[in-house]
This record gives sequence, C-alpha cells and structure tokens, in this order.
Amino acid sequence: MADAKKAVVLLSGGIDSTTTLAVALKEGFECYALSFDYGQRHVRELEAAREMAEKFGAAEHLVIQIDLARIGGSALTDDIPVPKGRSDGDIGAGIPVTYVPARNTIFLSIALAWAEVIGAGEIFIGANTLDYSGYPDCRPEFLEAFEKMASLATRCGVEGEGVKIRAPLIEFSKTEIIKFGCDLGVDFSLTHSCYDPTDDGLACGKCDSCIIRKKGFAGAGIEDPARYAA
Amino acid sequence: MADAKKAVVLLSGGIDSTTTLAVALKEGFECYALSFDYGQRHVRELEAAREMAEKFGAAEHLVIQIDLARIGGSALTDDIPVPKGRSDGDIGAGIPVTYVPARNTIFLSIALAWAEVIGAGEIFIGANTLDYSGYPDCRPEFLEAFEKMASLATRCGVEGEGVKIRAPLIEFSKTEIIKFGCDLGVDFSLTHSCYDPTDDGLACGKCDSCIIRKKGFAGAGIEDPARYAA
Repeated sequence: MADAKKAVVLLSGGIDSTTTLAVALKEGFECYALSFDYGQRHVRELEAAREMAEKFGAAEHLVIQIDLARIGGSALTDDIPVPKGRSDGDIGAGIPVTYVPARNTIFLSIALAWAEVIGAGEIFIGANTLDYSGYPDCRPEFLEAFEKMASLATRCGVEGEGVKIRAPLIEFSKTEIIKFGCDLGVDFSLTHSCYDPTDDGLACGKCDSCIIRKKGFAGAGIEDPARYAA
Repeated sequence: MADAKKAVVLLSGGIDSTTTLAVALKEGFECYALSFDYGQRHVRELEAAREMAEKFGAAEHLVIQIDLARIGGSALTDDIPVPKGRSDGDIGAGIPVTYVPARNTIFLSIALAWAEVIGAGEIFIGANTLDYSGYPDCRPEFLEAFEKMASLATRCGVEGEGVKIRAPLIEFSKTEIIKFGCDLGVDFSLTHSCYDPTDDGLACGKCDSCIIRKKGFAGAGIEDPARYAA
C-alpha cells in the first residue's frame, strides 16, 4: 500500500460520514478515519464510528479528545434541551440550538494537521446542504474558504499542492445519500443518528436528526434498521 | 463590564502573545485568554500563561487540552531533536522542524468557537513575520484567509458581523515587540520562550526561539530577564 493515495475521512458514525468513507474507499484511497470525543451527549456515535472503521478496513482510526463542552454554546454539549417533534418547516428555518460553534472548522483543522503529517492529499467530510438543519459550516462556500485557508496554513500548501477538501454528498438529499450508500454496500444498521439517545442506546425518534433520518429512509423505500424508543 | 467589548486572546506565555494581550487590554477589551495544553515539550509556557492572565486581570483564562502529540509531525511534540545553535541564515530559511502542523489553524478555530459563545468580536494572536522562523501560519495572507473562512463558518458570521482576526504585531521585529511591550508595562520576566528548557525550567539558550529572543533584547538595549542554562 506504499503507493496508495491517502485520505483523511471525518467519521462521526452517522449515515453521511459512513457513506462518505465508502465513497473514499471506492475511489481507491487508503483511508485514515478521524473521530472526536468532544463532550457530545451522544457518545454512542463514537462506538458506531469504531465499528465502522474496523468493518470498512480503514488503515487507521484516530479518536481525538477535545473538550468543547468547556466552551459550550450548544444543545449537543450543554444542558440546553434538544428540540423534539419539530416540523419540516421549523427544521429548515435558521440555525438550531444543536449547532456546535465552529465544530466543522475545528474538526477540519485537526484533520488538516493529520493529513499533513501522513501525506494525505484529500480530506473527506460528509457535509450536505439539502436536508441540513441550517448549519453554516456545512455549506459549499464554507468548505471552499477552508480549503483556500488551508493552502496558506501548511507546509504542504506552501511547498506542495496542499490538501483538497472533498464533500461528495454536498448536493445530496438524505434519501439520495441512503440509496447511494446502499449501492456502495454500507450497512446502515451500524450507523447512529440520534442527538439524544436513551441510556440503553435507543434513538429518541423525535429530534431533528431522527426525523430527517426516518424521512430519508421512507423516501428511499428502505427499512430503517435503527432501534427507536418511540 | 456588561457593555465592555470582548476579545479572545491566544496566550502561550511567550513575549509575542503577552505583548498582544497588553495591546488588547490597552484598547479597552475585556480579555478572555486562551491557552492550549497540546502535548508540547515545554509545558513551562503554560505556567507562564497562567501567571500572566492573572497578573493582567484577564476576565477568564481557559486552558484547552488537545493531544496533538498523537498526530505528531513536529519537534515540539515528538522525539525529533530541537535544532540548536543555528545561524541567522539557517533560522530564516524554510520551514523548521519545530513547525507544528496546522497549529495556528487549530488554535484559531477553537478561539473562534469561544468567541462565538461569549459574543467576542475579535480574536487577538501574537503572530509576526519579520523574525519568524518560517511558519506558514504566521503570515498575514493566512490570517486574512482564516478571517474570511470564519465569517462563513459561524452563526455570528451568517447572522452578524463575524469575528475579526487581529495580529497587532504582524509587522514588528522581535526588538520592536520588546520595546513596545516595555512601553505597555509588560513584565518580561514572566515570559517563557525556550523550545527545550531544562528540567528545572532554565531556558536552553541555543534553540531558534532562545536565539531570536536574545537578539531581540540585545537590539532593544534591554536586559533579558530569562534564566539561561547556557
């Protein structure tokens, strides 16, 4: 594998990042999966990421601890309630309290450091905009600006070609991502989406992420393998 | 202080970041100092940062742990030897092994998260280019690209005016920074610069950072209060 092209893949253990990992592998990349233990409520997703990286044969899986809960500002790291049972209109309107300030910027920055050290030319991220819940750091214009900044920030940008930011699902709806993932052989029973799972790991079924997931599977005509509490 | 304008200040405990904190305070900002325990060899600088933040009356001092040593790629986090006794020509040529991949990108990203949460409009960083040792992420073009990316990444960028990246020392030589810091009342005896201090906290006197520091004090005609092993 000495000559294989390398990629860092941000892997949360959800549908989008898992399908993105499958895309990178299909393109022939030796994949270095990167996950974060950032004080999120749903650490269940980290277990999903571990299983996934192993199952897919990632060259390495690194989990970096970074305590964003000390910075706060999000329902995913603080004691702010996760909204439940919102309508499609509410989900699509504005930036929700589950937004974690600068999260993708921080995750991509650390991915950039790892890419530079291992000599990876691309970073894959599962960001997508169609069904997104209003997160500014999932938009193409953000990713383009990050790539430009990265080319100025690093040794590999100054002395070489830098690192490309790849978001292969950016224009996909959740339904399209699920169909695409199925075609690539992704086993979605391993993925985790819920923002607020029960203590025994069942998905709540009512947070924005569960609602978008359910709708995505329904649209794809595929049975959702997630176990829901409600 | 409810109406004071707020700033996040990256504070390593060295000459540049300490002088930058003094600038931000002089401009009337309520300062939130941010330091990182990132697996660096010289954690001595963190103690310096703590003393400094307290002495200057920072509104808060946050130390975020992030284990960049697991990513590696630098003489400051790995077992790669720190270069000693280099000439001015060598120090100025190329990117040295003390470069930590994407460090300023990571630090600024976390500062951006904190700025967004506390409502700070500016982030201060002590980056400067004249005496710098070839770090790409200390250049004005990098900082401008980061600011642009940040305006697209965040709620405060999308819904408000975003966060400015301020590097007030960017065009200063080390000698000018030391003179400027003295004028602002900075006590440089608290600052720490050495990349490779002895176990009892003495500066090595021979690494690039010590060499640049010594030259800076000599140029300013001010006695360097650092304690050197050699």
